[in-house]
Amino acid sequence: MADVLARSLREGAVGCSGETFVFFDLSRLQNLLDRLKAAFPPTTLHAVAVKANPTVEILRQICLAGHGCEVASIGELELANTVGFPHEAVVFDSPVKTREELEYALRLGIGINANSLGELERIDALYSPSSSRSRIGVRINPETGKGSINTTSVATHNSKFGVPMKKNRDTLLRVFSAYKWLTGVHVHIGSQGMSPEQLLEGVGTVYDFFVEARQSTEVTVFNIGGGLPAKYRESEKPIRFAEYADSLRLRCPDLFTPSVSLVTEFGRSLHASCGWVASKIEYRVESSDGTPTLLVHVGADMFVRKAYRPDDWHHDISVCDSKGNLRTGTMRTFRVAGPLCFAGDYLDRSVSLPNDATEGDYVIVHDAGAYTFSMWSLYNSRQFPPIIGYEGPGTKFRHLRNRQSVEDIVKFWSCVT
Amino acid sequence: MADVLARSLREGAVGCSGETFVFFDLSRLQNLLDRLKAAFPPTTLHAVAVKANPTVEILRQICLAGHGCEVASIGELELANTVGFPHEAVVFDSPVKTREELEYALRLGIGINANSLGELERIDALYSPSSSRSRIGVRINPETGKGSINTTSVATHNSKFGVPMKKNRDTLLRVFSAYKWLTGVHVHIGSQGMSPEQLLEGVGTVYDFFVEARQSTEVTVFNIGGGLPAKYRESEKPIRFAEYADSLRLRCPDLFTPSVSLVTEFGRSLHASCGWVASKIEYRVESSDGTPTLLVHVGADMFVRKAYRPDDWHHDISVCDSKGNLRTGTMRTFRVAGPLCFAGDYLDRSVSLPNDATEGDYVIVHDAGAYTFSMWSLYNSRQFPPIIGYEGPGTKFRHLRNRQSVEDIVKFWSCVT
Repeated sequence: MADVLARSLREGAVGCSGETFVFFDLSRLQNLLDRLKAAFPPTTLHAVAVKANPTVEILRQICLAGHGCEVASIGELELANTVGFPHEAVVFDSPVKTREELEYALRLGIGINANSLGELERIDALYSPSSSRSRIGVRINPETGKGSINTTSVATHNSKFGVPMKKNRDTLLRVFSAYKWLTGVHVHIGSQGMSPEQLLEGVGTVYDFFVEARQSTEVTVFNIGGGLPAKYRESEKPIRFAEYADSLRLRCPDLFTPSVSLVTEFGRSLHASCGWVASKIEYRVESSDGTPTLLVHVGADMFVRKAYRPDDWHHDISVCDSKGNLRTGTMRTFRVAGPLCFAGDYLDRSVSLPNDATEGDYVIVHDAGAYTFSMWSLYNSRQFPPIIGYEGPGTKFRHLRNRQSVEDIVKFWSCVT
Repeated sequence: MADVLARSLREGAVGCSGETFVFFDLSRLQNLLDRLKAAFPPTTLHAVAVKANPTVEILRQICLAGHGCEVASIGELELANTVGFPHEAVVFDSPVKTREELEYALRLGIGINANSLGELERIDALYSPSSSRSRIGVRINPETGKGSINTTSVATHNSKFGVPMKKNRDTLLRVFSAYKWLTGVHVHIGSQGMSPEQLLEGVGTVYDFFVEARQSTEVTVFNIGGGLPAKYRESEKPIRFAEYADSLRLRCPDLFTPSVSLVTEFGRSLHASCGWVASKIEYRVESSDGTPTLLVHVGADMFVRKAYRPDDWHHDISVCDSKGNLRTGTMRTFRVAGPLCFAGDYLDRSVSLPNDATEGDYVIVHDAGAYTFSMWSLYNSRQFPPIIGYEGPGTKFRHLRNRQSVEDIVKFWSCVT
């Protein structure tokens, strides 16, 4: 990362773009997409989660690679349409789909996963085989419990996501018999903080239902929603696509036969490691307790989860000098604080960094390509930073998104007809 | 609120504006601004915190009422300029002001509070009395400790805000002697979660320093930054403007004499109770544990703090039917969940609401006018809801901000030159 930052500073690629830059390695993304493709049967639809990273230019690359996308709102659906994803390669998941949204998705032939029995009733009232080619499934909550992070664990008994399986197994079987248009199941238990065993148990539980349902109904689509944990620390060894596919093949053999239409919804494990953020150290201030604070230009606006749930989330941090050379040497403990008027606005409250970190240097936040800027918070009306793409060593930099202008911010808060 | 919602639905004021509406009572805001004005000496500059609520049409009313504003970024400064606040009525606070930003603020004559000794050095290098009419102060951290909410407590020993007083008292006195342009002190310890005694202790500690500094320097401006807690529960009795001013007058008598230029920076206590949010119940789903979940169209996107730190923040919730009539009758425990693909997306995980709450009804979130939509998170690319102003019973509704269009969202994620 340091070499890329150094080159971007040398070549003026960051221009007058402020003090924070998101860098995104498009060749790494391509490599991960290829690995994903190779791990699963070639007919698998890989519907990449737009919510992890909605940058249009990045979605475009995913589309060009022949993949689909998963959308969780009408805004995300329009992003998919703008990029040009084929409608049959788009999957619409949301727990609050309105009748109008369902009607629109059915008309376009977008894939839909109903979140509840009530939503299935609505779809039944709206669906007609002559006017829709949508593949429709139902999200099933296997109720296999939570992982190490509460706020991303979606397979608890009281989850708002999916039809809880234990109480509703028979109802679900009846529903599949009653609704001929219902051809798919969807499962998603959460990804970060989940062990491979938990992920497998979640999919396996719904798979067993799927096998049973197939004996009497037309169900053919299996959507392994949810993804895999991303690696945020050197010490972590998250399961890879190929290993995951292998373990699924053992536990759920039918999924890998031509009679099943397989769908995946990875996001974090594709994007996280491709993105990183450089932000200028504006001030180094000494606190009464002896631990210096580095004040940078990004914080709880981009790293919402890290700032609000610091014990659940982690990003490695390093420091480069003002020319982009990695600082090494004697280390000491620092706080790294963001720019916002908010006491919770820290990237890290205790991190070992080179002692000579100083004003004008850059703090580098690693593994920031997923669920970071996609959650951007408008607090303090700061400008969204530029996203700068590159393909690997020595290749040209390309702005995937410009820095937001202040005029844009003023427009946002004054838009009245 | 129910009567206002009912009328807005009857009159079609919410139009085709989606399923979530922010309502804002402009007459209540005017009333609170008047009460604030009456509580302090007439020459006091009330610089209302833009970060609490940056809606331009609402800022316009504050400006027309003769008040100023406090800004925490260049984006907020441009909002102030758009509205037309006189430059001398604008106060720029931020812990990461760049040299360019300082230069710009000095040129315009915007008030500045330096956050650190390092920032004072920068200002000294940039300032010239002939080219700037800025009133410049320094933020002092009285180190009086934290309140009941960690993430809004800014007067701890390790705070990133202000010059810690205990170690730097003599340095600060020297600084005031050395920099003739330095004429103000600023103090802010946090508001929500702070007792009146704590607020008074924070201001009082810096006041004692101020009195001492006045004996040998030109310091004349005292900025009581930070505000007062807002009332979020019926049982809470937060201190009012007049009571607060009275207690300050006792503890810090000089502040109320003509020789001192007093500045305040209220935000939460002005805006919170003026705003409330109505969001349609899209689905009522039964969970395995017997507690039903109401799924609505707003959640962790607008209520970032409530969703991520549910134990720190509270909003009362009530339910109206589809015509806006308040539901009463037998109560039971519900969960109220937002629309996002995120397990932490709850407005409340255990709230007593009328048992007959059902699809098509509206959930009303009380006291939502401050630090809610101003922190809007882009997660899931959902449309920012309309903000609808009204002046009191029977008056006309006025859109203060339209609902965001999906085209706008697409533009946000694809803006490249």
